[in-house]
Amino acid sequence: MDPNEPPVPILQRLREWVAIPSDSSQPSLWGEVERMLHVAADKITAMGGTVEFADVGSHELPSGASLRRPPVILAQFEKEPKKATLCFYGHVDVQPANKEDGWATEPFNLTEIDGNLYGRGASDNKGPVLAWLHAIETYLATKQEVPVNIKLVLEGLEESGSDGLEELIQQRNDTFFSDVDYIVISDNVWLSRRPALTYGTRGSTYFFVEVEGPKIDLHSGVFGGCVQEPVGDLIALLGSLLDHRGKILVPGIYESVAPVTEEESKSYQDLHFDLEEMKQEIGVECFLQDTKEAMLMARWRYPSLSIHGIEGAFSQPGSKTVIPRRVVGKFSIRQVPNMEPAVVEKQVTEHLHRVFTRRRSPNKLKVSATVGAKAWVADLKDPQYIAGRRAVKAVFGGEPELIREGSTIPVAHNFQELTGKSVMMLPIGGHDDAEHSEKEKISRYNFIEGTKLFAAYFYELSQLQQSPQKM
Amino acid sequence: MDPNEPPVPILQRLREWVAIPSDSSQPSLWGEVERMLHVAADKITAMGGTVEFADVGSHELPSGASLRRPPVILAQFEKEPKKATLCFYGHVDVQPANKEDGWATEPFNLTEIDGNLYGRGASDNKGPVLAWLHAIETYLATKQEVPVNIKLVLEGLEESGSDGLEELIQQRNDTFFSDVDYIVISDNVWLSRRPALTYGTRGSTYFFVEVEGPKIDLHSGVFGGCVQEPVGDLIALLGSLLDHRGKILVPGIYESVAPVTEEESKSYQDLHFDLEEMKQEIGVECFLQDTKEAMLMARWRYPSLSIHGIEGAFSQPGSKTVIPRRVVGKFSIRQVPNMEPAVVEKQVTEHLHRVFTRRRSPNKLKVSATVGAKAWVADLKDPQYIAGRRAVKAVFGGEPELIREGSTIPVAHNFQELTGKSVMMLPIGGHDDAEHSEKEKISRYNFIEGTKLFAAYFYELSQLQQSPQKM
Repeated sequence: MDPNEPPVPILQRLREWVAIPSDSSQPSLWGEVERMLHVAADKITAMGGTVEFADVGSHELPSGASLRRPPVILAQFEKEPKKATLCFYGHVDVQPANKEDGWATEPFNLTEIDGNLYGRGASDNKGPVLAWLHAIETYLATKQEVPVNIKLVLEGLEESGSDGLEELIQQRNDTFFSDVDYIVISDNVWLSRRPALTYGTRGSTYFFVEVEGPKIDLHSGVFGGCVQEPVGDLIALLGSLLDHRGKILVPGIYESVAPVTEEESKSYQDLHFDLEEMKQEIGVECFLQDTKEAMLMARWRYPSLSIHGIEGAFSQPGSKTVIPRRVVGKFSIRQVPNMEPAVVEKQVTEHLHRVFTRRRSPNKLKVSATVGAKAWVADLKDPQYIAGRRAVKAVFGGEPELIREGSTIPVAHNFQELTGKSVMMLPIGGHDDAEHSEKEKISRYNFIEGTKLFAAYFYELSQLQQSPQKM
Repeated sequence: MDPNEPPVPILQRLREWVAIPSDSSQPSLWGEVERMLHVAADKITAMGGTVEFADVGSHELPSGASLRRPPVILAQFEKEPKKATLCFYGHVDVQPANKEDGWATEPFNLTEIDGNLYGRGASDNKGPVLAWLHAIETYLATKQEVPVNIKLVLEGLEESGSDGLEELIQQRNDTFFSDVDYIVISDNVWLSRRPALTYGTRGSTYFFVEVEGPKIDLHSGVFGGCVQEPVGDLIALLGSLLDHRGKILVPGIYESVAPVTEEESKSYQDLHFDLEEMKQEIGVECFLQDTKEAMLMARWRYPSLSIHGIEGAFSQPGSKTVIPRRVVGKFSIRQVPNMEPAVVEKQVTEHLHRVFTRRRSPNKLKVSATVGAKAWVADLKDPQYIAGRRAVKAVFGGEPELIREGSTIPVAHNFQELTGKSVMMLPIGGHDDAEHSEKEKISRYNFIEGTKLFAAYFYELSQLQQSPQKM
């Protein structure tokens, strides 16, 4: 048997999991999410683990009725107090998928084409969850001791906002999580064709800038030129946020941004990222940065501000000559270490009020914000990153790329903040897995080598030291 | 009989006309519009006039089928070549009206409360059309010769855009309109409690500013800070149009604006317009102007620019972190005499391209414009304005207010441009008639005195001179 040819069951199992349309986007579909959770739980139980279906509260339907949310699986395997305890987080719900959306294959029928396994959830996140279970199973099947204690958190509402998870983590901080040493998440993808460890994500704060003027919408023929129009104020406010190269003009905003160390700076040089290929992919002539290093820094470790739109103004096709009485501008700031959302909110609010005051407008300004997630960054010297690098080296024969994400992954920050444990993101998905799109896939290579990576990681972690709590 | 108490029939007739729900907003309702046109035509015929139902083409339905538009009435009374010929324009269709919209009365049941006659179309425009017919009828009933030749243009699609009317005017320029000396429109309202003559309206050009960037919408977490966002470019472009007091910053835009003559300047002093009352009505703390004179000049005789909104950006309630790939900003400029729309379009387009070039953005800019209507202004020395002033003096005992409209009334400009005839707007509706709203009314006073005004106007016009064509 070719050593690269896997035994059939692990692909067959991914096919069975993908076949369950566990789309969590609508409560009416949650039956399939529950079914998927039970299939996962049965697998864990069959492997000797114990499973608790933890309640995460109810969802209020538009009718006023209340629907119990799909539970979160809290699972554990037999515990050996001397070993470090590793907790894996994953999810078994998926994004919506319909053949008519443009899928070349049946989205819930895992289909292999040229070594790629296409299907909804293949990469996000059923493939990685199964790879983790298969890594454990490999030890069991070969009658070897799993070198670390294993716990799992598997949820069914990740794609619709992880409602109730944060509360559950808090509730179980002193019980389920008390003996956890490390938390691993595998819910993102590599940057290039090379394996990666992810050690940071940006955070996000969403701003609402409301300008309110007359008590009724006005006709621009009758009142144009006579009233200070709320849209004019709002455009000036939004226009004061950025210069023509995307630099944020809010005073003080860059002050707390973590400085770039020499080591970090160097790490960008080794990354494989093709600016030209990316330009082609999204159809732009150029980026605001000329080099790979500068562009990835802009994406991962510097703040950015994007204006998303205006509520209350005319937004349909065609023409309408209204003067809207109240408009709300929307923009978001991606925060990075060490920016404090509360400070950012204060800086932005004060800036906007300063600009507004200079206009001497009779309209009313109200600025509000919601914090989507805080930035997250891990210490690369932490034992699990050392173990992660060794595991990658053992399986793939080279160093991993050390990457971050520009978008928020709230669960990483939340686990770190709420439990105080070390968190690592150890992706096994390929850079072209196209999660959320009609081309979602995981390659056979990544699925199998990813399984090996997790198994190697258990071993490398056990070799490093005893559980930090027991030192 | 109290001389101020009218004979019942003229109010009864307005009640009958208002009772016909000739809402032209939907083709499915055009049956009632046709019925209304026939009622009007029968009235004219009964008075001895001749009526032609002129075809104004067809409307294409979404089904692809074609529906004949309600015709336009072209009517005339017996002609005496020595007399001047006066053509009245009016419309017998109305805005939609439902009791549930907030009407205190039944909208199609003319209801008198405290001397006001509430009902859809009472002021816009059935009341004035009937007042015109009643003025003629007064001469006929008292066996007096009507002192001028009378023609009428009555349409049924004014509230939905007067489709086909412009073409009809052009077609009949050498026939129906060839012997017309003066055109009178009575489709607006007074400025205050005093009667008015309207001698101008602003025009309007609508601008579309399209900024196109990436070929797909982008995630602001992944690409925020790396791409030049189309919304950022658009906000800067829109922000370059106005200063904080509503002054238009497009170079050259004010250059062609007709200078204010001393006579015009004086005319504003006599106008009755209460700034405080207007502030209350629309709910603003102040206007951009401090005096009545300055505010009315800003409304009537200076250009203004209003930004209406953005198409393609996020416009719903809530939050969404998209970077839109293509956005279209919408704004309009109200033009005044002697601004040429083509010149304005060139000035604006060049200005926006200059601002855009300075940004060195990789995105694509496209500016386009549609001219809604040209500004219109009449010569107050024209005989019909002299006759109009005299008629007002005769009926109301004082000079009329000489006013303009800030909004476009395309028909005024179109008649003047297409026929080359003198056009006057001679409103009889009160300043508080609330056309298009759920409080539409005409006062018994305005309806009756308006009828007298039209009759007096026929007389004053005949006294001025013979038809200018025959001089």
